[in-house]
Parts: sequence; C-alpha cells; structure tokens
Amino acid sequence: MHANDDIGTGSPHETRAARVLRLPDGTGETDRLAVEEPLEIRIGGRPVAVTMRTPGHDEELALGFCLSEGLRPESARAPDDLAANTVDVDAPGFDPESIARSFYTSSSCGVCGKGALEAVAVEAARVESQLSIPLSAVLAMPDRLGEVQPSFRQTGGIHATGLFTTGGELLLVREDVGRHNAMDKVIGRAFLDGLLPLSGTALCVSGRLSFELVQKAAVAGCPVLVAVGAPSSLAVELAEDRGITLCGFVRDGRANVYTEPWRITV
Amino acid sequence: MHANDDIGTGSPHETRAARVLRLPDGTGETDRLAVEEPLEIRIGGRPVAVTMRTPGHDEELALGFCLSEGLRPESARAPDDLAANTVDVDAPGFDPESIARSFYTSSSCGVCGKGALEAVAVEAARVESQLSIPLSAVLAMPDRLGEVQPSFRQTGGIHATGLFTTGGELLLVREDVGRHNAMDKVIGRAFLDGLLPLSGTALCVSGRLSFELVQKAAVAGCPVLVAVGAPSSLAVELAEDRGITLCGFVRDGRANVYTEPWRITV
Repeated sequence: MHANDDIGTGSPHETRAARVLRLPDGTGETDRLAVEEPLEIRIGGRPVAVTMRTPGHDEELALGFCLSEGLRPESARAPDDLAANTVDVDAPGFDPESIARSFYTSSSCGVCGKGALEAVAVEAARVESQLSIPLSAVLAMPDRLGEVQPSFRQTGGIHATGLFTTGGELLLVREDVGRHNAMDKVIGRAFLDGLLPLSGTALCVSGRLSFELVQKAAVAGCPVLVAVGAPSSLAVELAEDRGITLCGFVRDGRANVYTEPWRITV
Repeated sequence: MHANDDIGTGSPHETRAARVLRLPDGTGETDRLAVEEPLEIRIGGRPVAVTMRTPGHDEELALGFCLSEGLRPESARAPDDLAANTVDVDAPGFDPESIARSFYTSSSCGVCGKGALEAVAVEAARVESQLSIPLSAVLAMPDRLGEVQPSFRQTGGIHATGLFTTGGELLLVREDVGRHNAMDKVIGRAFLDGLLPLSGTALCVSGRLSFELVQKAAVAGCPVLVAVGAPSSLAVELAEDRGITLCGFVRDGRANVYTEPWRITV
C-alpha cells in the first residue's frame, strides 16, 4: 500500500507489468502500464453506460458520472471482484425510458454506446501485413508530425495523427481536440483516396495510446502504430491480439516496442 | 493558408483568439485556443452520434468514425457553413434500428449520448461562490498533484484530478486513464463525504481542459478549475457562462487566467 492512500491514489489495480523491447539498445525489460478496462455502469440493475476506466474507486466513478449527468444517485455498489467490471447505482426516481428516448446512441469516444462488455471491440480481422519499417523512420515520425502542427504550435492544446510511408514520408496529418477524431479524419481521408486497408503504411499519434486508437488502426488494417506517449494496458493487449506493432514513448531517439517487434528493422 | 495545407493541417477553423490574463505579470494578452465544437453525425438523415471535435474535415471525420464502427459508408456531405455542426453520411444497408437495439445509450465521455446539439450541456446553475484563492496556492497545485501520482510515475500514462482547499491543501486525488473518469471519481468521493457543492474548493487536472471537464465542475458547484495544459475554446466559453474561474498552462510559476480572474488574489 502506498503512503498517500489516505487521500486516494496507489491502488494496486492501477498499473500492471508488461514486457517491452527498448530500441535502439535492444534490451528486453519489464515496464509498467496504466490499466485500462471497461466498466459497465448499471442503474437499478439496468446497464446505462460503458466507460473505459482504470479499475479502483468504481463506486465513486459511477456516482460522479451520474451526478454529472444531472441524475440523483443515492449510493453505488461494486462487486468485491473488480474484474467483474460492473457497478450498480441506486437512483430512485430514475426513469431509464426517458434516457433511452432523449439520448443518442453513440460511440464517438470509441467505447460509449457498446452493447455489452464483451462487445466493446468492433470486429476486425488480424492485421497480417508483412510490412517492415526501419527504426530510423519510426524515431523521426514525432518530430515530423510536430513540424506540420500549426494549430498545436498556436494553442498547445490539440492532438494530431499522421499517416507515414515506411520510408518516413508524411502523407497526411489531421489535428483535433479529440485524439480519436484526429485518427478518424486520417482514416476517412485515406478511405476517400482509396488507400484502405493501410497495410503498407504506419500511423503516428502525438499523445497517449488508448484501446480505442488501436481499435481504429486495426479496422483500417494498419500494421504499425507509433505514439509519443504511453500506451494503456488494453491498448497493448488489443495490439497483441490483432498483430499490430505498437511503439510508445517514441522520443529523444528511443522507442519502446510492446508488440510484434519483428516489423522494426535496425 | 499554411504551407502544409497539401497534407492537411492549418484550417482557419482550428483555432480562435481569446483574451487571457497572464499571472503573476498581470498583463492582458490575446491567446489562441484550439476550437472545440459539437458535430452531429447523421446517417441517411438520422442522427446517430454527437462528437466534440475541431471543425474542418468533417466529412473525413464522419467517414472514419463510421468505418471504425464497422459500418460501410459510401460518402459524406457537410454543409458549406461549418457552424451548422452537422454532417450527413450515405451508408446504404445501414439499419438504425439494429444500432438502437444493440448499443447502449451512454455519455461516459461527457458528450456521447446527448439528444441534440443544444442539449449537449447538462443543466447546471451558475456558480455564484464568492471564494477567493491566492495565486500562490494555484501555482503550487500541479507540483503537489504530481507528488501523489504514483501510477503516473510508474507508467507516464494516466490522468489525475485533485481537490484542493484555498490554502493549497490537497484533500483528495484520483488517477485514471480517462481524464473524465478521474474527475468523476473525485466528485463521487466528495458526494459520499457530504462535500457537495464544492463551493469552497478548487479542482486541478493534470492535462488539458475540455468542455466536459468544465461541465462536471459546474454541476459539482466548483468555482475554480486549474489545469496544467491548455483549455479548448468551448471549455473557456462554458466557464464564462457558468461563472467559473478557469486557469490553464499552470506551470513554472505562471498561470493563464481565462475567465473570472477576480477570484485570484496576488
């Protein structure tokens, strides 16, 4: 347990170990990832939302979520086993029909709107591309992306996704306050240009890698996903499952490779 | 127009000017913010999702979104006036009833699941708190937050929200891969401890400030919201509307105050 537990952090469920290949050194090490897992929020036993969260304090999350939605919760209960990934809220007077009528079904955040925990992942075939890419091209992507981010330079507050050739050429970049939107815009443009599936190219994002971004890359058939920031646990698990090469912390001439390192040539 | 327009960024809709008070200098300047606005995605004329996005490339966004959801879009059309904030997708064979049945209504990302553009904001009274807070307390918050973020130190990939007294004492901190979840957890804990409304305290977040975080702070009645990163345009607009003091880029002994600066005492 952590010394700061009295004010709240340090739950043992918040991080987990993962193997990582550090390049260019080539050393294999154990890294820690922030845990990302779905949580189904139920009101009166009825599922109302799925959010991707870090396990722990699930009752608080559900209560805060309901309050933010203008509901009047009284209490919340999570099962002893956090891996059940559910939480039940008591909110007398809550009318699920009124919510069903007045809210859109939606999944713009990549997860909201899904029908069940096991249905969080959209069907996508394994990415079978035999693409290989030089480490030097991977390492150069974040700087190249930064060069063409005028809105980021102006505001400091916008995400970018870039589409790169294996030679490191930037084909396309989109910026958005939502990182999922920036990637959707790139994939949408690639669709219009007849470039799907993206089996011969790599995607690079300016921030962290969540489950949803790996899912989008998988559906687009992209075999290499590069990030300036950290991946979540579920991002790594999904990349492993779909056969995607996942690189994180790509900065200062170094990269952490979490999955399918054979595509990176040194 | 920008030199990199051929590969995609630099849309004139992506940033807008805002007045900002720089502290401790006390100079008033014009800053640029990343624009955040809702986009209603329609398929065959039927609204299916609302996402908070940076305007521009809306057709690409809608196509990429639909592809990521496993749909088969053919084309998309946005009105000439981007401020209409709608985009229509053609996806023959799309059955809205099947989506309505199989997806949850949800709003865990703070925006998904809302019934109309004008309904994006949850009802929340204006925050009338007469609270004042020393600049020194504001400036010290990010470092104090960082000290008690063990999961961030381990992983580099997790957001935090802290609840502070006006004296700068940290009452509570929560970490999560989703920044909205970290704030929901803090608000949920405050609810359980009988601390709502948060009219005598300040919230500090480790990243950027989007619309949804300001909305959560407003519903919780918190008058001061502090961020290490940049606010979006809509975050500033909502803070102005709800009477919340919004501080961004709080780092290295400086802060940008976007709204209601009278609560900060120097």
